[in-house]
Amino acid sequence: MTQLQSVAWADGAVLVLDQRLLPQQEVVNRYTTVADVAESIRSMQVRGAPAIGCTAAYGMALVATHTPAQQGHELLPALAAARTQLDASRPTAVNLFWATRRMYEFAVAQQQLHIDAFRLAMQREAQAIFDEDLAMCQSIGRHGEPLIPARGRVLTHCNAGGLATAGYGTALGPIYRAHELGRQIHVYVDETRPYLQGARLTAFELQRAGVPLTLITDNMAAYFMGQGLVDCIIVGADRIAANGDVANKIGTYGLAVLAHAHGIPMYVAAPTSTIDMRISDGSMIPIEERSSDEVTMIGGRRIAPEGVTAAHPAFDVTPARLISGIICERGVIRPPYTSSLADLMQE
Amino acid sequence: MTQLQSVAWADGAVLVLDQRLLPQQEVVNRYTTVADVAESIRSMQVRGAPAIGCTAAYGMALVATHTPAQQGHELLPALAAARTQLDASRPTAVNLFWATRRMYEFAVAQQQLHIDAFRLAMQREAQAIFDEDLAMCQSIGRHGEPLIPARGRVLTHCNAGGLATAGYGTALGPIYRAHELGRQIHVYVDETRPYLQGARLTAFELQRAGVPLTLITDNMAAYFMGQGLVDCIIVGADRIAANGDVANKIGTYGLAVLAHAHGIPMYVAAPTSTIDMRISDGSMIPIEERSSDEVTMIGGRRIAPEGVTAAHPAFDVTPARLISGIICERGVIRPPYTSSLADLMQE
Repeated sequence: MTQLQSVAWADGAVLVLDQRLLPQQEVVNRYTTVADVAESIRSMQVRGAPAIGCTAAYGMALVATHTPAQQGHELLPALAAARTQLDASRPTAVNLFWATRRMYEFAVAQQQLHIDAFRLAMQREAQAIFDEDLAMCQSIGRHGEPLIPARGRVLTHCNAGGLATAGYGTALGPIYRAHELGRQIHVYVDETRPYLQGARLTAFELQRAGVPLTLITDNMAAYFMGQGLVDCIIVGADRIAANGDVANKIGTYGLAVLAHAHGIPMYVAAPTSTIDMRISDGSMIPIEERSSDEVTMIGGRRIAPEGVTAAHPAFDVTPARLISGIICERGVIRPPYTSSLADLMQE
Repeated sequence: MTQLQSVAWADGAVLVLDQRLLPQQEVVNRYTTVADVAESIRSMQVRGAPAIGCTAAYGMALVATHTPAQQGHELLPALAAARTQLDASRPTAVNLFWATRRMYEFAVAQQQLHIDAFRLAMQREAQAIFDEDLAMCQSIGRHGEPLIPARGRVLTHCNAGGLATAGYGTALGPIYRAHELGRQIHVYVDETRPYLQGARLTAFELQRAGVPLTLITDNMAAYFMGQGLVDCIIVGADRIAANGDVANKIGTYGLAVLAHAHGIPMYVAAPTSTIDMRISDGSMIPIEERSSDEVTMIGGRRIAPEGVTAAHPAFDVTPARLISGIICERGVIRPPYTSSLADLMQE
């Protein structure tokens, strides 16, 4: 793993960059068992739905790598067990379930193969999941780059970058693309309390890629908008409802209201797999309440008095009316979203 | 100091609560020299313009406490030196200069007194500065309390509380008053990155006073407003221009924009000494850029990659049009501020 990459396959092992240690330490762990890969997901060494999906796919490929079996079908029980184990590692990660099912169904279809061919086929299928994700991010980058205004000052929130995906990222895709094209670009990175994904991860990968950035605390975003220093905002999405409402990291909604008040375009970048047509609007998306320790402690150090109640809604919902466009791998979706998303998903 | 108090005079010494150690440790330092008092201001053991003013006044009183002098006039050179030393401890603190000048001019007027009477007079004058500040905060509390809607859910930012003043606070004044009256009240406390005054200080003093609170990260404010859980916002002010524009802790402007978008009243609580009629509007208020280390580090621990550029505007300016009212010790000032502030300051 010479380039910054969240997960990779090499010599019959899964390499996982331990994102919990970033930016202080850059540690890549090498795993050869499904149990270890599942644990790396559970313990959040790897995070970001697409990156988790790729990791789980590689985990499934491991089953065929170190085995005395002679034919693929002998491994189906072990693959079913691996799928269960991996699925249990992050119970809310849709990409995880999708990736393990795809790998399992592929194995069933290829079960007649001799073990050498089966092993190679499984590795290739896992690699295909990775490569497709990377290609999807690059496509989001190509579609999104022209939306960045000439002065190129983009504000982003959380980490929807290469570390959250196979590489390149969703929200960071258009930024990387603009940088590759030699465009002038500058990124304002929200630190993104409480988990500090912006400070720890987005700042890290942009710095590594040589993209100029300024790290800010979340409450500075309005100040820079008011100073006329932000040309557009691009964020990722955890889930998009049929009407275009977007669930994303806490703080996104506030940014959208501020962007609207300042006349700044607010874009959401996400693959079409994030669009959930069964959900009619954002009010149907439950908001996960996470541990208040993440608010009252930073890096194991208590910053608030003992016994104080802290809230930690991990996500918020931004209404479609505040979103200027949704950048996906097939193009830029514009309002009114109820019809444009329906058209897109029926294609 | 049995009650939570930022500074006090006791037995010929100045007691300073070391706010840098809050909320983990509650340490009160006892100082008997001007040099130590100046250092306590410089090192930010005590912060908040009114609290700094009280501390400096007590520091001036110390000069008359431990002395072989027989009459007040013998101490004038030492008092002039103390004034210079204290003024240099926080070069931008207007209340500091005001307090040391008042103490020095009082000393000049009383210089004919015998040392025992002079000592007592100086202590009483310092105590008067403290008592007047406390009374002013209580008056702000009385005027502001009726502005809190019936459901009593107030959001505040930074610390404009008892710890920043002689006691009771400015922004927290109306909240403490409502609590004293037995009203139902609940405070959403912005943690206030980067320096975390909300998490460390406001949460601490509200908890100590028994006022129900929920600590939130700054980027959660919009979420709670959107959920209809915030009835009004009350913040302090560092400086108020003649047209009603308000300079306050970074993040205040964003809150004001969000409050406006949600139809939530946004109040500023500050003594009239904060109003600077020589400044016609907020564009004339310089924004202090503080160390970026406060953004990239928390409690000595690095949270962002080495070499990353971080911005740290310490304040922002909220335009008068976003402010529903200014609560001062003489009453509630309403728009249009250009005329209402002029009327107030001419009284």
